[in-house]
Amino acid sequence: MRMNRQWRLAARPQGIVQNSDFQWREEAVPALDDGQLLVRNIYLSLDPTNRVWMNDADSYLPKLPLGAIMRGGAIGVVEESKHPKFATGDIVQGLLNWQEFAVSDGSGLTKLPSIPGVPLTAFQGLLGHIGLTAYFGLLDIGQPKPGETLVVSTAAGAVGSLVGQIGKIKGMHVVGLTGTNEKCKWIKDELGYDAAINYKTESVPAALHKLCPNGIDVYFDNVGGEILEAALSQVNLHARIVLCGAIAQYNADKPEPGPRNLSLMIMKRVRMEGFVVLDYMNRAEEASRELVQWVQQGKLKYRVDVVEGLEKAPSALRKLFDGSNAGKLVVKIGPEPAEERSQHAAQ
Amino acid sequence: MRMNRQWRLAARPQGIVQNSDFQWREEAVPALDDGQLLVRNIYLSLDPTNRVWMNDADSYLPKLPLGAIMRGGAIGVVEESKHPKFATGDIVQGLLNWQEFAVSDGSGLTKLPSIPGVPLTAFQGLLGHIGLTAYFGLLDIGQPKPGETLVVSTAAGAVGSLVGQIGKIKGMHVVGLTGTNEKCKWIKDELGYDAAINYKTESVPAALHKLCPNGIDVYFDNVGGEILEAALSQVNLHARIVLCGAIAQYNADKPEPGPRNLSLMIMKRVRMEGFVVLDYMNRAEEASRELVQWVQQGKLKYRVDVVEGLEKAPSALRKLFDGSNAGKLVVKIGPEPAEERSQHAAQ
Repeated sequence: MRMNRQWRLAARPQGIVQNSDFQWREEAVPALDDGQLLVRNIYLSLDPTNRVWMNDADSYLPKLPLGAIMRGGAIGVVEESKHPKFATGDIVQGLLNWQEFAVSDGSGLTKLPSIPGVPLTAFQGLLGHIGLTAYFGLLDIGQPKPGETLVVSTAAGAVGSLVGQIGKIKGMHVVGLTGTNEKCKWIKDELGYDAAINYKTESVPAALHKLCPNGIDVYFDNVGGEILEAALSQVNLHARIVLCGAIAQYNADKPEPGPRNLSLMIMKRVRMEGFVVLDYMNRAEEASRELVQWVQQGKLKYRVDVVEGLEKAPSALRKLFDGSNAGKLVVKIGPEPAEERSQHAAQ
Repeated sequence: MRMNRQWRLAARPQGIVQNSDFQWREEAVPALDDGQLLVRNIYLSLDPTNRVWMNDADSYLPKLPLGAIMRGGAIGVVEESKHPKFATGDIVQGLLNWQEFAVSDGSGLTKLPSIPGVPLTAFQGLLGHIGLTAYFGLLDIGQPKPGETLVVSTAAGAVGSLVGQIGKIKGMHVVGLTGTNEKCKWIKDELGYDAAINYKTESVPAALHKLCPNGIDVYFDNVGGEILEAALSQVNLHARIVLCGAIAQYNADKPEPGPRNLSLMIMKRVRMEGFVVLDYMNRAEEASRELVQWVQQGKLKYRVDVVEGLEKAPSALRKLFDGSNAGKLVVKIGPEPAEERSQHAAQ
């Protein structure tokens, strides 16, 4: 009997996620009914929003009950199918959750094409919700204009690192905030940011003042809290603030106060807008086409940080909040089909 | 020698405005140079934004130096003119400040037409910045749709009382917040609001929950602070928050925290936008035409609260913050030309 290893939600986290908020379970993989398929998960996507899903509250998705398998986006391979639209060997993506095997009725699953030179993990980053978030968040909500100043928080993160580069492609002056000197160096030297601020060691208001001599026109916010307040204090007339995430808030035991300078939004006629990439899925193709083109032209770089082993998912999730990862974070649950075949051949 | 009575800014207010923040001065009316005109002020407009102008900080206008004549919009009559574009007897409106006589070079002054049946004070309310603020704030920033729910704070105030009525004209379910039972009754019985909340005696979150059974689509914010937080907690997907004023903040000694639930803006994809009516002055005619039409059709009512005597301006300004006025607040500085003529005739 084949066993399915999985992480279930054991407790609502208080602050930073603990291993004890999850429970490791191994249970038999059930037999399929008609209309179902069995997916062996390969890559699990870890994102700040996972932390939101663990709370005792609905978000843009319904809250997850205690005891449920932890929700997560994943890419896997179809091992068995009693579903007319999926065949053994298909590579699929969807909310396949924190487990080795997922039984699905196919709803919400996307079949991934095989594109030479494009690794599977690109579909969780550049060509997935990460790339679309950066693309539509900056271009649609932020409405950037050449010569304007863009400030990006979590600038070395999966989304932020793309936002800053797209800002440069659009002719903006781009300043990024991140939490280590190595990441500051990476976004400046490799990604082409005009300037970087280490928000853990520098005064953010003073650094923004120095590095944005013409004020801030677009602030792409992934954190909320004090950095939002600092950016708002230096916005130009008719600035746009893109609320994409509030990572500084996700671990708070109780909600933290918003910026104390919100009335500046009136004085400066600022638009602040929250968005969720799910609203843009019908325009995914237009974004993916342009993103791939930019990568092929060498204008857009991305980095994937792969943690090996499903058992490490809870500790890996913490990396998103302690600033120790750069680029897109994924957990490798099992081998890709090609790797599996070469392993078999070697035996 | 004719004397000019005036209020000058004597101190930066701490919290609520005190009489001692102003200094009463009487000085000679100067002789005119070529290109100047002398205006005798009749009506001084009092608005929450006056409080903002007293602070030691630039707003959407430069900060006022200590010792300067207090800034204020007023309507007056030209008594003497060495300016080619203005003649004795013209009625003019502009930043004529807290004084009996203003010497002007004509910049920023508008000549008012004489419209039978339209009182002069209408140009400080319905046909002035108040009416335009309500009109463009709700229609342009709020983007209301029939059947949607609109919540208005300071709903019996000069701007708020018009916003709620325009919401009704546009087919919305309209709920207003105000600070006395009399004003609650007025906005429901006279202005046609669907429901009213006395925010001083009721729990705002509970009342909003009860009176907005379909959630909130547009929140027109004149106050900021806790009421903004309460409204944000009950918004619908893609709601719009119009930041028009932050009266709850204007008297704060230090900036108060913003809403603790700002990350709901992401979950619900909310747009929050600050605006200042000055940006819409080039579209004033289109708004005034429609506003006058609505008044003539009996769909729009407005109230003017007239305080007699320039010497009462400081205490009258406080009425805006203690909730004791309803409708548009003005100070009458001197007689209208027609009143003056009839006084002369009687002597």
